[in-house]
Amino acid sequence: MIKRIAVLTSGGDAPGMNACIRAVVLTAHTLNLQVIGYRHGYNGLLSRECQPLHPGDVFNIIQRGGTILRSARCPEFVTEESAHRAAKNLDDMQIDALLVIGGNGSFKGMQHLAKFWNGKLIGMPGTIDNDIAGTDATIGYYTAIDTALEAIDKVRDTADAFERIFLIEVMGRHAGFIGLASAVGSGAEQMLLPELLENGQIDVDAVVAHVEKTRAARGKCSYIIVTTENLYPGGATALAAELNRRMKVDCRAAILGYIQRGGSPVSLDRILATKLGAYAVEMAVAGQHLMMAGEHHGEVVAVPLEETFASKPLDPYLVRIQRDFFDLLKLQG
Amino acid sequence: MIKRIAVLTSGGDAPGMNACIRAVVLTAHTLNLQVIGYRHGYNGLLSRECQPLHPGDVFNIIQRGGTILRSARCPEFVTEESAHRAAKNLDDMQIDALLVIGGNGSFKGMQHLAKFWNGKLIGMPGTIDNDIAGTDATIGYYTAIDTALEAIDKVRDTADAFERIFLIEVMGRHAGFIGLASAVGSGAEQMLLPELLENGQIDVDAVVAHVEKTRAARGKCSYIIVTTENLYPGGATALAAELNRRMKVDCRAAILGYIQRGGSPVSLDRILATKLGAYAVEMAVAGQHLMMAGEHHGEVVAVPLEETFASKPLDPYLVRIQRDFFDLLKLQG
Amino acid sequence: MIKRIAVLTSGGDAPGMNACIRAVVLTAHTLNLQVIGYRHGYNGLLSRECQPLHPGDVFNIIQRGGTILRSARCPEFVTEESAHRAAKNLDDMQIDALLVIGGNGSFKGMQHLAKFWNGKLIGMPGTIDNDIAGTDATIGYYTAIDTALEAIDKVRDTADAFERIFLIEVMGRHAGFIGLASAVGSGAEQMLLPELLENGQIDVDAVVAHVEKTRAARGKCSYIIVTTENLYPGGATALAAELNRRMKVDCRAAILGYIQRGGSPVSLDRILATKLGAYAVEMAVAGQHLMMAGEHHGEVVAVPLEETFASKPLDPYLVRIQRDFFDLLKLQG
Amino acid sequence: MIKRIAVLTSGGDAPGMNACIRAVVLTAHTLNLQVIGYRHGYNGLLSRECQPLHPGDVFNIIQRGGTILRSARCPEFVTEESAHRAAKNLDDMQIDALLVIGGNGSFKGMQHLAKFWNGKLIGMPGTIDNDIAGTDATIGYYTAIDTALEAIDKVRDTADAFERIFLIEVMGRHAGFIGLASAVGSGAEQMLLPELLENGQIDVDAVVAHVEKTRAARGKCSYIIVTTENLYPGGATALAAELNRRMKVDCRAAILGYIQRGGSPVSLDRILATKLGAYAVEMAVAGQHLMMAGEHHGEVVAVPLEETFASKPLDPYLVRIQRDFFDLLKLQG
Repeated sequence: MIKRIAVLTSGGDAPGMNACIRAVVLTAHTLNLQVIGYRHGYNGLLSRECQPLHPGDVFNIIQRGGTILRSARCPEFVTEESAHRAAKNLDDMQIDALLVIGGNGSFKGMQHLAKFWNGKLIGMPGTIDNDIAGTDATIGYYTAIDTALEAIDKVRDTADAFERIFLIEVMGRHAGFIGLASAVGSGAEQMLLPELLENGQIDVDAVVAHVEKTRAARGKCSYIIVTTENLYPGGATALAAELNRRMKVDCRAAILGYIQRGGSPVSLDRILATKLGAYAVEMAVAGQHLMMAGEHHGEVVAVPLEETFASKPLDPYLVRIQRDFFDLLKLQG
Repeated sequence: MIKRIAVLTSGGDAPGMNACIRAVVLTAHTLNLQVIGYRHGYNGLLSRECQPLHPGDVFNIIQRGGTILRSARCPEFVTEESAHRAAKNLDDMQIDALLVIGGNGSFKGMQHLAKFWNGKLIGMPGTIDNDIAGTDATIGYYTAIDTALEAIDKVRDTADAFERIFLIEVMGRHAGFIGLASAVGSGAEQMLLPELLENGQIDVDAVVAHVEKTRAARGKCSYIIVTTENLYPGGATALAAELNRRMKVDCRAAILGYIQRGGSPVSLDRILATKLGAYAVEMAVAGQHLMMAGEHHGEVVAVPLEETFASKPLDPYLVRIQRDFFDLLKLQG
Repeated sequence: MIKRIAVLTSGGDAPGMNACIRAVVLTAHTLNLQVIGYRHGYNGLLSRECQPLHPGDVFNIIQRGGTILRSARCPEFVTEESAHRAAKNLDDMQIDALLVIGGNGSFKGMQHLAKFWNGKLIGMPGTIDNDIAGTDATIGYYTAIDTALEAIDKVRDTADAFERIFLIEVMGRHAGFIGLASAVGSGAEQMLLPELLENGQIDVDAVVAHVEKTRAARGKCSYIIVTTENLYPGGATALAAELNRRMKVDCRAAILGYIQRGGSPVSLDRILATKLGAYAVEMAVAGQHLMMAGEHHGEVVAVPLEETFASKPLDPYLVRIQRDFFDLLKLQG
Repeated sequence: MIKRIAVLTSGGDAPGMNACIRAVVLTAHTLNLQVIGYRHGYNGLLSRECQPLHPGDVFNIIQRGGTILRSARCPEFVTEESAHRAAKNLDDMQIDALLVIGGNGSFKGMQHLAKFWNGKLIGMPGTIDNDIAGTDATIGYYTAIDTALEAIDKVRDTADAFERIFLIEVMGRHAGFIGLASAVGSGAEQMLLPELLENGQIDVDAVVAHVEKTRAARGKCSYIIVTTENLYPGGATALAAELNRRMKVDCRAAILGYIQRGGSPVSLDRILATKLGAYAVEMAVAGQHLMMAGEHHGEVVAVPLEETFASKPLDPYLVRIQRDFFDLLKLQG
């Protein structure tokens, strides 16, 4: 029977991680479990940096960005030695289950640890990128798309004032979820997403052609291209320079960057984080292991960890209508 | 075959209505349909207040609150005479399908009109209350819960500073969706929702008992009660007065009111509105009638209008964990 | 020579109080002074609720609403006994100077305490109402007007959608600063401010006449009246009811209430709070007493406490142009 | 006597330009003047792109970012030919006075035009950079500092979660106003502003030393450096790379970029824009010429245009205390 659980946050921080920690602590409390929080992700497991967490410690943190437990990458957590050390430290602390809030890399760490530790391991998807299969959304994604959208709305003001072209780079590593949502939400005229590239490469000629045909059809006006990171060598700055070389009109780059990770979580991230935090504790109590707490079709679900690495598709209907909207302009030309 | 469609917004305005109008116009354009916009809801049908809508008319409105077509209640739209007049006006304008963005009352108007008009009628759920069955969310709901949450976060600052009790009234007419989301999202200590009342009445003694036990267990601290409107005679002001009468500690009321209807729509409302606007046009083209465009489990769906009036349940898991979190404090007492 | 100072926050909380506490602590630290924070305003002085404050205690609080020291009213702090007790407690703690962040009522408390205590007393103006003379703005005012404005912008969306009249009540106790700023900022068609009333009473006939003439001249459209609290018996709800009785058109009330006190402070409040917190410490070190740290024309100033109670005028140019804008509409009628 | 005035927006757009246009139109209307709006800055003067502006055209734009008149740079507006053409076009339209909302470059254009045109020329300071002398603030500055601050607050979340160093680049061309305000407001540990550099160059060794001493004194924690653009060859990205080379710890760059120009203006920008728009019209009516409408110490003032090019100092008190706060940490080391 489970008596004491531990929780840590790992990898890129995401808004809602604190709400998730809070739900873990409050749920554990109702079930008479003790909670230990490890700091700095897996590093804390190695260095025994930890603290007990009581309900009073998580009061009024639901609305805070970042993570009270700190986060970190832990590149060394691939060796046998480090996993042994972590396992020993967890056993010394009499931890029965470890709950990890993080992304794919953090889940790999769980799989590695499982080879050397007998406790239960439960993951919660915490990343703004939404690139984890088995859950409709990840904690932090909803906030990130609103942050991106607010920023793009602001750039649209300037783009309109100058009837100018902007290339806006959003986060997403190798996934287009933030890109698609912010392109649709901002009414962007073009979007460059990893899932939509042929041959995995941006066709710069096609990008230019769309800009020129749209402006030919619609008259001089603002035009926004949303791109995710990592699609073009040198990033959005280099791509904007290349577009400038090929087009007569000026194209400016705006890289949204780190602002997308922070901020007070929006409602849906607080709610998702709360549900998944509570459910992860219940899963641990039920003896589940190497599973992720996810949400599918509005309901909490337990997903085998290995299934979470599968690729997750963009909403095809949304992709189609967003493209159709701006095809029409081509037709008018 | 459909050549010309009309669109109107009716009932309480909701953030995302403009995004929905935009999607209707852009989708119609790709399908070579003409679009007429009626103003002031059903009143515009009666008074022939209308205008053609082209893609240029909906440029850069995706981010705007309110509705460019204006909205209104139209109490007279229950008579045969008014429906006849509307039908004649639609026929005179050669409208093949009418798309209505609104809530339950607006959908009733569609059913009424259908008895007297031969065109196709398609609804899109536009209301902050989320009280329409057949769609996981309604256009405007996502923005409303974030607006409510931001306001409650601010009140929490004052509540904390004074270690004071606040009773916060959110919208929702007869549905607790906004109430539940904002209670969970704000970490409110208690929530009063229509779906959770026994006998349909607030048990004031139980409210007082929870406040007092919580503060006995946890020490003097802020305490927030979220309530929806229409649950207590005289509203939150009267309920706060009654609580003050029965408790030693001061309880203040904050009525969020109309700010919940306005504002720039958040990402999810823009995306939902865009999908439903596009799909409603496709439904009309496919010859559907007396149906609502909804979203269920991430996919657009066509829902018979009469099914949309069914009651829609709150998320039971969310209700349970939110209650459990604050039961634990009772146990500590 | 000063060695140890104390700080407390008193009266209604205001965004920026934490930034001010932080500046006090950081400045004291550079000057090698110790800082004690009293909790719950003057109550903490009476009950000896206090804690040392170090730079680490104020890290990352500059952006937080509310006050980490809590606030409170302290009605009993008018008796000789309570002032004696406070003086004794301060002496026991070897406090050389007490810094009070608060409004008029809190400054009265300082004057009362000064009769019984030999330490230095310095005030900092912390109130959203901006009703303290001797400083161009008070800490919290800048945030409050932006909060009010954001809320009114949202109500404007609904008002426009319905071409409806809204009466919006903002805070301000007996001062029209928030009312004037939010009326000008929102483009409100009418404003009811204490400083502008003849005979101290709202002339309901004149209010009605302006609404009707404006709508006659401009056509049916949204119309917003901004009023401060305490101007009409029963508040905005009662006034809206009275307007509804006298006009044909519907008028809704929206009472912004407590949301105006909370939230993360805007830049100018953080900057003002930082300057005044630093300067108050410097004033104490310089041996000043019964003075307020204020900002006048961009520079920090020391103001005798008794001068802060004088009445503070609204910007007459702003009042005139705001009125002129909506006179023109009358002329068009 | 003045009968017809023109207005245009020129140079980088700034939040509040629309509020200023609105005030020009409403004030002109009360004085029975006609208003013509030129589009795309000085380009519109050359190409005769203009439109009459009535009160109805500026309804509900006070809250919008960007400029309804569009803006542009106009590099050719330095030739005699272009000024002649502009003068002729203005005379053909019977314009008596031209009001220009823009920055230094736009004011140079006014001086150039004045050599060839007999009408009155009045400027209004519209730029986020606040680098115009003779006015305490420029239209757009207040919004820009809040936008920058919100973004930095978000980056602080991630910086804290990872206890990481961030270099954040804000706008300001050659002025440190945005940099100073956002450094103070965010509690940034270091600021690099053009006014504070010795020899006009960043001393990278000193930057590194401050980071290392602070972290030695305070322990591992987040550390934020705010820098303005144009201070280091290659910008913040290159500087962060250089810091990474010299330090053991990771330093990330975040370039806020264009988001700082857009967005709905905050209260103070709306109020400032409203006052200056109204006053500029009054100045034109009073026959003033080659003057700027500014605000000094809360009052509207008329400033000779050539005085606006003088250099404008940062607030020395604010600079000192912000530096002192983080000196203390050095001392602890």
